[in-house]
Amino acid sequence: MQNINAVEIYDSTLRDGAQSRGISFSVSDKLKILSRLDEFGVDYIEAGNPGSNPKDLHFFEKAKLVRLKNSALVAFGSTKRKLIAPCDDDNLNAILKANTKYATIFGKSWDLHVFDILDTTLLENLKMIEQSIEYLIDKGKTVFFDAEHFFDGYKNNRDYSLDSLKVAHKAGAEKIILCDTNGGFLPHEIFEIVADVKRELSDERLTIGIHAHNDSGCAVANSIEAVRAGARQIQGTFIGIGERTGNANLSTLIPNLEAKTAYKTLAGKNMGALTDTAHYIAEVANLALSSRMPYVGTAAFSHKGGMHVDGVLKNPVSFEHIEPCVVGNERNVLLSEVAGRGAVIAKIMKIGQLSGLEKSSPIVNDIIAKIKKMEHKGFHFEAAAASFELLVLKMLGKIKPFFVIENFEIISSLNDSNLSTATVTVRVDDVCEMVTLDGTGPVNAIDRALRAALEKLYPVLCGVRLSDYKVRVVDEGNSTASTTRVLIESTNGKETWTTVGASKDIINASIQALSDSLEYILIRRPT
Amino acid sequence: MQNINAVEIYDSTLRDGAQSRGISFSVSDKLKILSRLDEFGVDYIEAGNPGSNPKDLHFFEKAKLVRLKNSALVAFGSTKRKLIAPCDDDNLNAILKANTKYATIFGKSWDLHVFDILDTTLLENLKMIEQSIEYLIDKGKTVFFDAEHFFDGYKNNRDYSLDSLKVAHKAGAEKIILCDTNGGFLPHEIFEIVADVKRELSDERLTIGIHAHNDSGCAVANSIEAVRAGARQIQGTFIGIGERTGNANLSTLIPNLEAKTAYKTLAGKNMGALTDTAHYIAEVANLALSSRMPYVGTAAFSHKGGMHVDGVLKNPVSFEHIEPCVVGNERNVLLSEVAGRGAVIAKIMKIGQLSGLEKSSPIVNDIIAKIKKMEHKGFHFEAAAASFELLVLKMLGKIKPFFVIENFEIISSLNDSNLSTATVTVRVDDVCEMVTLDGTGPVNAIDRALRAALEKLYPVLCGVRLSDYKVRVVDEGNSTASTTRVLIESTNGKETWTTVGASKDIINASIQALSDSLEYILIRRPT
Repeated sequence: MQNINAVEIYDSTLRDGAQSRGISFSVSDKLKILSRLDEFGVDYIEAGNPGSNPKDLHFFEKAKLVRLKNSALVAFGSTKRKLIAPCDDDNLNAILKANTKYATIFGKSWDLHVFDILDTTLLENLKMIEQSIEYLIDKGKTVFFDAEHFFDGYKNNRDYSLDSLKVAHKAGAEKIILCDTNGGFLPHEIFEIVADVKRELSDERLTIGIHAHNDSGCAVANSIEAVRAGARQIQGTFIGIGERTGNANLSTLIPNLEAKTAYKTLAGKNMGALTDTAHYIAEVANLALSSRMPYVGTAAFSHKGGMHVDGVLKNPVSFEHIEPCVVGNERNVLLSEVAGRGAVIAKIMKIGQLSGLEKSSPIVNDIIAKIKKMEHKGFHFEAAAASFELLVLKMLGKIKPFFVIENFEIISSLNDSNLSTATVTVRVDDVCEMVTLDGTGPVNAIDRALRAALEKLYPVLCGVRLSDYKVRVVDEGNSTASTTRVLIESTNGKETWTTVGASKDIINASIQALSDSLEYILIRRPT
Repeated sequence: MQNINAVEIYDSTLRDGAQSRGISFSVSDKLKILSRLDEFGVDYIEAGNPGSNPKDLHFFEKAKLVRLKNSALVAFGSTKRKLIAPCDDDNLNAILKANTKYATIFGKSWDLHVFDILDTTLLENLKMIEQSIEYLIDKGKTVFFDAEHFFDGYKNNRDYSLDSLKVAHKAGAEKIILCDTNGGFLPHEIFEIVADVKRELSDERLTIGIHAHNDSGCAVANSIEAVRAGARQIQGTFIGIGERTGNANLSTLIPNLEAKTAYKTLAGKNMGALTDTAHYIAEVANLALSSRMPYVGTAAFSHKGGMHVDGVLKNPVSFEHIEPCVVGNERNVLLSEVAGRGAVIAKIMKIGQLSGLEKSSPIVNDIIAKIKKMEHKGFHFEAAAASFELLVLKMLGKIKPFFVIENFEIISSLNDSNLSTATVTVRVDDVCEMVTLDGTGPVNAIDRALRAALEKLYPVLCGVRLSDYKVRVVDEGNSTASTTRVLIESTNGKETWTTVGASKDIINASIQALSDSLEYILIRRPT
């Protein structure tokens, strides 16, 4: 018998997530995310709407070849159109073509939608629900029913919204999911309504699910309240992407349930992979994952305020709601002026531990003094761990420079294409390389020229590219002669690292950060 | 008598928000945000911790000169250290130096912190709370007590956590705020605990507040549950920034309360300015506001899925939880990144009123189209009113260009002093001026040369100087060829104005903003 506290996780990154602004998945992207979600252990993966998107049918053909370990694949679509036989409905037939065991169809449970959007009668809509479900079951599918706008419908006409669920239940839907499609409900309302549904549809074999959107900033809380009221399936997307403000974020919900409630998920056994999975999906979706995302964001366990830093070093539980390693994330003590000395020492020791560095060694004080001096000049190491590591290793005498920039010149002038031209000469031991290249503006020009010159000498650098470039002015009041800080994020496809430069000259600051970025990967991957 | 459903909004953007990763406010930034929050109508603005940050004292001196219409300024700090007299405590005395009517001090209510962090006895901690509050009251302050880690404390040792509140109450704290400092609690727990506190501290004159962090993704929901259980002050930050995953997001909470509950806020009268205010604060903080942020994000009312778009066109309520204009945001295709169409028209009319512009004039649509195109390219007019005004006046044919940059060339090369050299030729009617000057980096060089050339032709420009220069990369993912937005603030000692430029080339973007800055003052002070 199933554990009464087991909650199913139903991921719709590939369907509802694909409706997010700026998201455009290729078939290959979808296959990558499918495998990763399966590996992580979500119960169901809603992977496409073959009726509304022909590309999705192609995906389902490929997906059938993927051997899933944990998850079941689900095709999504709507109930049939009004006044036609189910077998004549293109959308339902497209679902059949996807050839999955599971099909989720959404139907109307809000009377306003029946009138204003479908332009039909309340009775006809119930027939559409009933006949669509029966048709799919008849074709061998296991059917889940998404009651679209259920909560709005309940508020407007409780009886009709419940009728739509009862019809779906009677027609054989195995699970019924209550959707807050507009995302506007608050937690206590969700609790009350789900509890009422549980009373009305008192069939122990029927699973009730929740599908929440984040328009009130409450999608996570609403999902938890639904579970507390008796729901046992949560629909969402792994990193919260979706229409408008997005769907319930599963990478927040799973650890919330596992670490803080009696409810358990299949994916719970794999919580250590949570952070990596979230970052991987963001990478494939070509999205910057918010650093502030609960559990998985790079700032989720960052401590900046002096008292917080001191506290967390004395006893982590004092300023952390959960151990970061439980979700595969890391504690990060930010090296800002407000951080205590203890934090900096802890970071230095972590880098120096392989070379047997002692906490009491005088070099530790020298390093701290150097960092303070550089931060005073405008460097900022809290977001540039790679530059910090390079600095420490250099001061410990563990590395020597990999190259020297002997000379450069950049010329920018008034022209239509904003082109600047950079000439750079780099030296490695006795070998010199000089390269001249155009770029969009002076910084892009020097970036291109420096890279091109060094790639000749260090082929490993060919795989390195910049993934982010940030500029900010740090000491205001000096106008255009203010100190500029440049942060560069680089990647080789597997690792990502951030470096920093600071100078009153943006070109100089950019060159510092670029050099660090390239040197950092040279330490790790010597030619 | 106060409305029993009135909820106070307490904004800590300038204190807890400043502890967010990557945030570094200058005094001028803080003053701008202070004025904007006051205009919007939050009840309290917690603006700094003078004991831990000497820069904050300088801010409070300046802030005293700002005449606030709606908000009260609050200084923040901790209870005194153990075993010393309050009058000898630097932190408490720093709060007094800030010279505000209101002071919020935080103290321990979690026994674990008393032992592990303060390394003292339970009794001594209660004395620290009592004496600190009494000292500040004695000095004429109205004191709010932040019970740090209250919920963790309650779970571990209910009686002691309640004792800490009772001591604060007895000592005269006017309001007591329950903090979920680690942000790990779930909504139903918050409700139960706040309800219990209300029963235990049954003084009708005492306001209980909630201070939630977002580590479980529930800060908004937790704040609402606390209000439902009897809390009447919500602490948070306007756009949710703060330590780790951030604080409760006030730009979500205020419309949630106003539009969906019986609770009302002072700021509620100003809901139409919600979106603009959020974007303004993000701009000053030099942060990209998440497009998915509820209510205020640029995607909050954008519809992508075909059925959603069709539905929303048939009847907006079918796919929107609230009318976007209520919070100053806009549906679907974004006219401007920030402001709704109505807001932009209002701004245009204000500029055009002297020249008898009619709202129905076709030129208004042309201007809106132009703005939309420019914002798509990376311009941002919300924080650059001077550029906006110039653009409108130019399109109305009210001004012609004051000068033309005929040519420029900048040369930057490797040298010890980071000097670049710029040569610029400007023409005014038939007169040309060519100037060559050095500068620290290419932007400073062109700034100096352009100014020197124009000062010869327009002596009034001699009194103009740049007071702020901000750079930020707007379309990430293109690395060093990304679009760069430059914001320049200028002053002539009396007035201050801000202009914007955007280009893939930082030099080009800087020249646009510089030109606007100089043209703007030439309109007002013709030679």
